[in-house]
Amino acid sequence: MPAKLKAAVLGSTGYTGLELTRLLLRHPRLEQPALLQREKQTDTACNLAEMFPVLSGNGSYPLQPLSWPALRQQGVQLLFLATPHQASRSLVPEAIAQGLRVIDLSGAWRLKREQHRAVYGFEDADSVAAADVTEMAIYGLPELHRDQIPGAALVANPGCYATSVILALAPLLAAGIIDRERGIISDSKSGVSGAGKEPNSRTHFVSVADNLSAYSVFGHRHVGEMLEQLQLNTCELIFTPHLLPIPRGILSTIYVHLNREMKAGEVESCFRDFYAGRRWVRIFATPKLPQIQFSLHTNYCDLGFCLADDGRRLVLVSCVDNLLKGAAGQAVQNMNLMYGWKEEEGLQ
Amino acid sequence: MPAKLKAAVLGSTGYTGLELTRLLLRHPRLEQPALLQREKQTDTACNLAEMFPVLSGNGSYPLQPLSWPALRQQGVQLLFLATPHQASRSLVPEAIAQGLRVIDLSGAWRLKREQHRAVYGFEDADSVAAADVTEMAIYGLPELHRDQIPGAALVANPGCYATSVILALAPLLAAGIIDRERGIISDSKSGVSGAGKEPNSRTHFVSVADNLSAYSVFGHRHVGEMLEQLQLNTCELIFTPHLLPIPRGILSTIYVHLNREMKAGEVESCFRDFYAGRRWVRIFATPKLPQIQFSLHTNYCDLGFCLADDGRRLVLVSCVDNLLKGAAGQAVQNMNLMYGWKEEEGLQ
Amino acid sequence: MPAKLKAAVLGSTGYTGLELTRLLLRHPRLEQPALLQREKQTDTACNLAEMFPVLSGNGSYPLQPLSWPALRQQGVQLLFLATPHQASRSLVPEAIAQGLRVIDLSGAWRLKREQHRAVYGFEDADSVAAADVTEMAIYGLPELHRDQIPGAALVANPGCYATSVILALAPLLAAGIIDRERGIISDSKSGVSGAGKEPNSRTHFVSVADNLSAYSVFGHRHVGEMLEQLQLNTCELIFTPHLLPIPRGILSTIYVHLNREMKAGEVESCFRDFYAGRRWVRIFATPKLPQIQFSLHTNYCDLGFCLADDGRRLVLVSCVDNLLKGAAGQAVQNMNLMYGWKEEEGLQ
Amino acid sequence: MPAKLKAAVLGSTGYTGLELTRLLLRHPRLEQPALLQREKQTDTACNLAEMFPVLSGNGSYPLQPLSWPALRQQGVQLLFLATPHQASRSLVPEAIAQGLRVIDLSGAWRLKREQHRAVYGFEDADSVAAADVTEMAIYGLPELHRDQIPGAALVANPGCYATSVILALAPLLAAGIIDRERGIISDSKSGVSGAGKEPNSRTHFVSVADNLSAYSVFGHRHVGEMLEQLQLNTCELIFTPHLLPIPRGILSTIYVHLNREMKAGEVESCFRDFYAGRRWVRIFATPKLPQIQFSLHTNYCDLGFCLADDGRRLVLVSCVDNLLKGAAGQAVQNMNLMYGWKEEEGLQ
Repeated sequence: MPAKLKAAVLGSTGYTGLELTRLLLRHPRLEQPALLQREKQTDTACNLAEMFPVLSGNGSYPLQPLSWPALRQQGVQLLFLATPHQASRSLVPEAIAQGLRVIDLSGAWRLKREQHRAVYGFEDADSVAAADVTEMAIYGLPELHRDQIPGAALVANPGCYATSVILALAPLLAAGIIDRERGIISDSKSGVSGAGKEPNSRTHFVSVADNLSAYSVFGHRHVGEMLEQLQLNTCELIFTPHLLPIPRGILSTIYVHLNREMKAGEVESCFRDFYAGRRWVRIFATPKLPQIQFSLHTNYCDLGFCLADDGRRLVLVSCVDNLLKGAAGQAVQNMNLMYGWKEEEGLQ
Repeated sequence: MPAKLKAAVLGSTGYTGLELTRLLLRHPRLEQPALLQREKQTDTACNLAEMFPVLSGNGSYPLQPLSWPALRQQGVQLLFLATPHQASRSLVPEAIAQGLRVIDLSGAWRLKREQHRAVYGFEDADSVAAADVTEMAIYGLPELHRDQIPGAALVANPGCYATSVILALAPLLAAGIIDRERGIISDSKSGVSGAGKEPNSRTHFVSVADNLSAYSVFGHRHVGEMLEQLQLNTCELIFTPHLLPIPRGILSTIYVHLNREMKAGEVESCFRDFYAGRRWVRIFATPKLPQIQFSLHTNYCDLGFCLADDGRRLVLVSCVDNLLKGAAGQAVQNMNLMYGWKEEEGLQ
Repeated sequence: MPAKLKAAVLGSTGYTGLELTRLLLRHPRLEQPALLQREKQTDTACNLAEMFPVLSGNGSYPLQPLSWPALRQQGVQLLFLATPHQASRSLVPEAIAQGLRVIDLSGAWRLKREQHRAVYGFEDADSVAAADVTEMAIYGLPELHRDQIPGAALVANPGCYATSVILALAPLLAAGIIDRERGIISDSKSGVSGAGKEPNSRTHFVSVADNLSAYSVFGHRHVGEMLEQLQLNTCELIFTPHLLPIPRGILSTIYVHLNREMKAGEVESCFRDFYAGRRWVRIFATPKLPQIQFSLHTNYCDLGFCLADDGRRLVLVSCVDNLLKGAAGQAVQNMNLMYGWKEEEGLQ
Repeated sequence: MPAKLKAAVLGSTGYTGLELTRLLLRHPRLEQPALLQREKQTDTACNLAEMFPVLSGNGSYPLQPLSWPALRQQGVQLLFLATPHQASRSLVPEAIAQGLRVIDLSGAWRLKREQHRAVYGFEDADSVAAADVTEMAIYGLPELHRDQIPGAALVANPGCYATSVILALAPLLAAGIIDRERGIISDSKSGVSGAGKEPNSRTHFVSVADNLSAYSVFGHRHVGEMLEQLQLNTCELIFTPHLLPIPRGILSTIYVHLNREMKAGEVESCFRDFYAGRRWVRIFATPKLPQIQFSLHTNYCDLGFCLADDGRRLVLVSCVDNLLKGAAGQAVQNMNLMYGWKEEEGLQ
């Protein structure tokens, strides 16, 4: 049995960070990870098992202040950042300079093109250091970039909506069968944990329950990732997110026109061929369709479709658990690839 | 003060029928309506106030068996049918022969074209009597057919999804500004009361809660109404319904391409002009969008939109309460027009 | 037709205040009420119809700064305060000095005994002015204090939990059939609107959904009201509130021992006699029990019970809509009594 | 590594059976279990992975008809019954006669006393065979009967409500500090999966959502287990179950009077001492209280309490996931004890 890996997590008190920590705590290849908090919070420091009763009963999970020398001393090799994108933007170059490998769950390093990055308003947008880090970042969607992830120093873990949309469209775009000129539409719906833990009037129970609302129409930050990864032009994709009255889960209903008449079996083959051997994508045979419940609490992306009688109009349905395949689960999947382990280790 | 109208309701124990009954019970122009049940159920007959505690405390609401002579004797002039479409299909011709005016809340008489009606599988599809009744039926969407409803003997009350979609698209189609060749998509989401009161595995709480699912893709019965009312060809509209984990409310997110570049103000004017003077449609000025909560427990259809920077791609959001503007409220609105009352009587 | 009353509301943007405003806007005896905000908020002033789309479509509801001269000029006679208790504590004496009648929906003036009032931490607890106002305040539970409300200058509108508990117990205590020494327990459950509109980690959707939690055990502020109104000693009542994953509604399950063996019919008669002629209490005949849905969106308090075979142990179930009979609806009921109108005006 | 155990499950398509099957499929000590269905259903036979998409992606789970020779041939040693109690009542004697060990998740064999068993209406109540099996059945609450479970031929797995109530009260009753004459009250609330998978008007989404209801007051079947295990008389315990608008989870709020004045620390010690070394009970230090979310998707029973200032009145809060510690998880825990494995194997 080889020595276990020592990893660290910054941001373990958010929804994504907590889910990630729970996965790492039971991962068979890992020592208990170091749980970090930024210095200014240290005075309120405490123990994750006390803050989150759901974690209690199995031991103690003290938080420690982030300190590069301390991480080195503890033998930490891999750093997970479950932090706001501004924090990741400044911390990642430091961490890499310290010789750490990094999996960043924020949007800080996902985008190559300045035009898309603009939505994040990074002040360092054109610095040399940022450009270097941008250059080395691998977009951590294992189903698309499996070959690049093992050697990566920095994995930029995809957004939750982006994961659901990109995985649904990649096989069809790769096969060249989408009529891109007619436009692609993703009508996506997400549970509230996707909106983060910060209490505000939008996330108040009374605002969400018995409700549904669209938001950020033509203006959501995840669109940039989708366009870059799918190599689409801005006008070729409309993405409309909605806030569902459920804690977690994403369902994207995606509309495309095919550029030739196809049969359902051909469409299904297109998906099956593209994802052959990929552990965490499940293809549904028509007329079955994914539902949010099916992939909840799993790392699966579930894909299904309906083809119109004309063989041209195609409706795709893609589901992920936004905290797992859409965030923490995918981060673990990326770690598994980075260290040469099986893609499903610690995820079942 | 003129004499009050005597109406009757068949099917007051379903979700729609109960909502309708509650509206009629407090309508200022009506006597207490006769509440009917079909004969085979008479042995279990009882009182609506006992069956539904929510109704108790204000009086007694006994159910009586449906009998044409009894209705005549009670002076009933108007019959509401909140029955399955097969029942409405056989009852409406009888009721009209009895000289009653009818508002039918089922899908039995909404469609003119045989091709669309086929989805209902009516056995009488080509009988002379059915053709006559089909001919006289007015589609009860007051915002489109206000002039025809006052004189109608039979009003076919629209479907809930259809109401949300047709009201969103009618102004733009009337103005001729939609590029119909590029296709229209309605991604619609409904609360569970829209699926009816019959318990089954789909409506079990555990199946719906924490979930979202698409269903009847390319095959929902309400599509026929939408196509007929909007004068669209089958291939010009994709309609995808979803089941939301909420009791009531519909939100339709609708995607269209405009055939010329427009400004948001022009789009808003198109809606405002079309619905000028119409009491039960509310137009939201961009960037505000309707949410399901806003129209819940009201008879409003709320309409909003987002226009892309290119002035061509338009996302519409349309919300109705499926039991009110999508069913019972609209039926009352139709009654108000049939009898020359204000459109909002009994609906505030 | 007599002249209509001019009322004013301070705090119409909270859950209770908004519900109250909606009731007042359609109350047949009232002019459109003046909607007030405290001065410091005036710079962000605006229109209620814009802030709450649910209110739009019927007119304009501008907010105006609270100013005694302006209220006098507008002929305001009655002031509703839907404000935090500290604000009510300072505003009520001023308003009364101005000659206004007041219905205060906060906890500021509900309690007579200093010992109970202590939980609110009023700084003025022993001032002469406060003592005078405390003296004149009538606890606004119409089913108990109907005779005193018509002449009241100040009505202290009851708490939502207190309403559900007091109405369930008052008949049995008045009849002297409860064995008080064995203790009374109210296990109460409330929807989230009862926790107020302020976003915090407790009211975040993800904290509430799929959850249930007890809170403020042995320490909830409403206990004082219950003890005073029911004339119980502290040790005779245990009250445990719970937070339900629903927007609104309260169900209290209450456990008492009877001091003699009774039959279900006797218990039912005790309730029916006590509430004879009371419009807004509904008694359920055993074995039927109230559920939260039955009284939702109504001003009813629903009461039911189960008696053990031994005729001694009694379980009561009491339901109210916390925003209506538990707050805004009861305030309107109090107004109706203050001005000699029917108890149900504007509440159906 | 010793040979793995071959187990079988009858009833894997219900909520409890499916949860159990998922646990068994990933249990490190087990071969893939045989999944059984009763013969009359065989014609609709199929594969669990097809019926439940949540299970797909990891292999094939065919259902096979229940046949004793086939089970013997496959080397099955342990049979789980997740069947209605009538079915368990007839199957268990047969299975034991075949030499199988059995864990029965129904209520068929939990009760020793005829008086309690009467609520189930077993026709064989006084047969010799039934008496023999009743005699050998061990009530499978490991925290109480750890010593008897290893040698058991038949484990009667406890009810979900019973688990939450018994575990909360056992330490205090064992210590003799409860004033039993004053009565014990358990006000319990459960998610809908506890009501079973059969669709009916009570489990329809629209009936449950935005609602809370008490049911089976003074008449729930689980009371018998509680009385027997806690050695209480009927009049000493009131149990009131409620249906919560959530899919899963139970919270019991339990009220007791102590027979002497105690301090919170003493109460906590009473719990900690009783459950020392017990892996699946977590004690919360006051003022922290369990919430349903904390134990969801775990096998923990979480226990907390609040003691009144008088040191006499005690409120206990007990939470379990009704499908895990309340059913399938506890069954696995029992299996672990029966075969001498660690209590937490396959449950983390």
